[in-house]
Amino acid sequence: MKAIVVKEPGDAEQLHVTEQPKPEVKTGELLVNVKAAAINRTDIVSREGKSGYLDNPILGVEVSGIVVKAGKGTNVEIGTRVMGLVNGGGYAEYAVIPAERAMVIPESLSFEEGVAIPEVFLTAFQTLFWLGDLQSNETVLIHAGGSGVGTAAIQLAKQLMNADVITTAGSDKKLDYCRSLGADLCINYKEQNFAEEVLKATSNQGANVILDFIGASYWKQNLTSLTVDGRLILIGVLGGAEVEQVNLMELMAKRIQLKGTLLTPRSDQYKADLTRDFVNKAIPLFNKSKLKPVIDHVFPFDEVQKAHKHMESNKNIGKIILRIT
Amino acid sequence: MKAIVVKEPGDAEQLHVTEQPKPEVKTGELLVNVKAAAINRTDIVSREGKSGYLDNPILGVEVSGIVVKAGKGTNVEIGTRVMGLVNGGGYAEYAVIPAERAMVIPESLSFEEGVAIPEVFLTAFQTLFWLGDLQSNETVLIHAGGSGVGTAAIQLAKQLMNADVITTAGSDKKLDYCRSLGADLCINYKEQNFAEEVLKATSNQGANVILDFIGASYWKQNLTSLTVDGRLILIGVLGGAEVEQVNLMELMAKRIQLKGTLLTPRSDQYKADLTRDFVNKAIPLFNKSKLKPVIDHVFPFDEVQKAHKHMESNKNIGKIILRIT
Repeated sequence: MKAIVVKEPGDAEQLHVTEQPKPEVKTGELLVNVKAAAINRTDIVSREGKSGYLDNPILGVEVSGIVVKAGKGTNVEIGTRVMGLVNGGGYAEYAVIPAERAMVIPESLSFEEGVAIPEVFLTAFQTLFWLGDLQSNETVLIHAGGSGVGTAAIQLAKQLMNADVITTAGSDKKLDYCRSLGADLCINYKEQNFAEEVLKATSNQGANVILDFIGASYWKQNLTSLTVDGRLILIGVLGGAEVEQVNLMELMAKRIQLKGTLLTPRSDQYKADLTRDFVNKAIPLFNKSKLKPVIDHVFPFDEVQKAHKHMESNKNIGKIILRIT
Repeated sequence: MKAIVVKEPGDAEQLHVTEQPKPEVKTGELLVNVKAAAINRTDIVSREGKSGYLDNPILGVEVSGIVVKAGKGTNVEIGTRVMGLVNGGGYAEYAVIPAERAMVIPESLSFEEGVAIPEVFLTAFQTLFWLGDLQSNETVLIHAGGSGVGTAAIQLAKQLMNADVITTAGSDKKLDYCRSLGADLCINYKEQNFAEEVLKATSNQGANVILDFIGASYWKQNLTSLTVDGRLILIGVLGGAEVEQVNLMELMAKRIQLKGTLLTPRSDQYKADLTRDFVNKAIPLFNKSKLKPVIDHVFPFDEVQKAHKHMESNKNIGKIILRIT
């Protein structure tokens, strides 16, 4: 089968289509004829040789496609349209997926739309609800509102918890898009101090939950933006990892909870539990069009280098998809 | 009635016994003839004029005594022996306590023993279980094992969760005492690097939960001591509040949860809920002698200055008590 591997750890030019053996299906797994794969930041980190999570030489952590073979202990029918997270090997004509993590694609959605769901919606769902414990009508500040996880988080916070959603982004185009997804207040971080705007919008109370991908450069403003008992969920450090000075008394006085997480290296069991909870609570809303996958661009299989460069240029709103077959 | 107030914000010499009006009982409150009050660090902070939590001029946040009057909406019998947290006003012959926070003193315990329970056991219970989510057979690192909260936490972690308990203290006397309470590994932080010892004792896995009162000076060693998905619960900054250079990627990679908290400024509702949970799960173990209040010293009412100085000298193991009547 055709599959994409990395020649040498490095930039996007290292990505090449090669011939690889079709994967074997083990107990509890499904073999999927992959129709589409999505590009994720973790793929770029893997491409650069900076993470050791996955021992699969084929990149890619999420796919959509058709089940062509079902391993022992599974009860999914051949021909089912599924989407979900895989342990590497997604940029390929065939991939194996643990059956517990395969979600049936909502009928109203295409394969490209389906593959735009798992990573970003599961991450947003996990961080907002499992870690952030977002409650009905609370206020949530979602950074990088135009990113994949950002666009998913805005919708989930609004549709599942009727939250007051505040979001930041760096262009008016992105902010307009966030507004169309349901964000109540959209802040251009290049032009405004977001902490001041959050306090203004919340009668100086601050947000209950912050979803942050930025890290060090937002640290002080994030703490200022949080209310008492606020939860700061950290899932990226695009703005640096080293904070120069942290005042622990400030954390204690506000009773802040700081939780750092990464989804990809979690256990199979965790991903299966998360998938089940998401399927119950969120999937029905896709068929009702209350939630929608957000696609920036679909690239053909052999334009994978372009697809990676597009993500690295940081201009996308929503997911970048690779059409496989 | 006789009560202790602060003349001017400052040192222990500012504490004086004065004549004050008996407090009025409001709806939902009990009037208690106070038999004993406990000294807490928060009293010292209040004495120094550094906190604005309590508007009561009389110091003291926990008492034991006999109910002499019950406000509307309560159903506690006159004559009941109770202990619990009050909103200031504890160093006095009479004090009011919200009925929801009054716990019946276990039959086998005296008033002095009873008053040694609420603050430290509720704090330890809240931080270990509500915030730290300590599970059966997990490993917990409890700093300042000889302190009031430390001695309570060692017992609760052991008796309720059969946890592996690792503790630190600065003298062999304190460490021996911790061992007698059930601690499995006792580390002298003046002589050993506690992170190294924790890793050695856990096959390099680290602890699941850390209960820390020290803050900045322990920051790096604490992060090293935590395992993946570890919870660092911060309830004091005796070793400084300002941490230089925090690496957020380290927090994310280990999926660490950092929670800062203070108990005294929590809401009445929170304290009532916490009290109820504690009464159900922990109080029965006092009558079975599986848990025991730890008393360092009992001072008579008019030696309150000595009692404060004793706490400030940092040599106590367990609670310092003021006998009122």
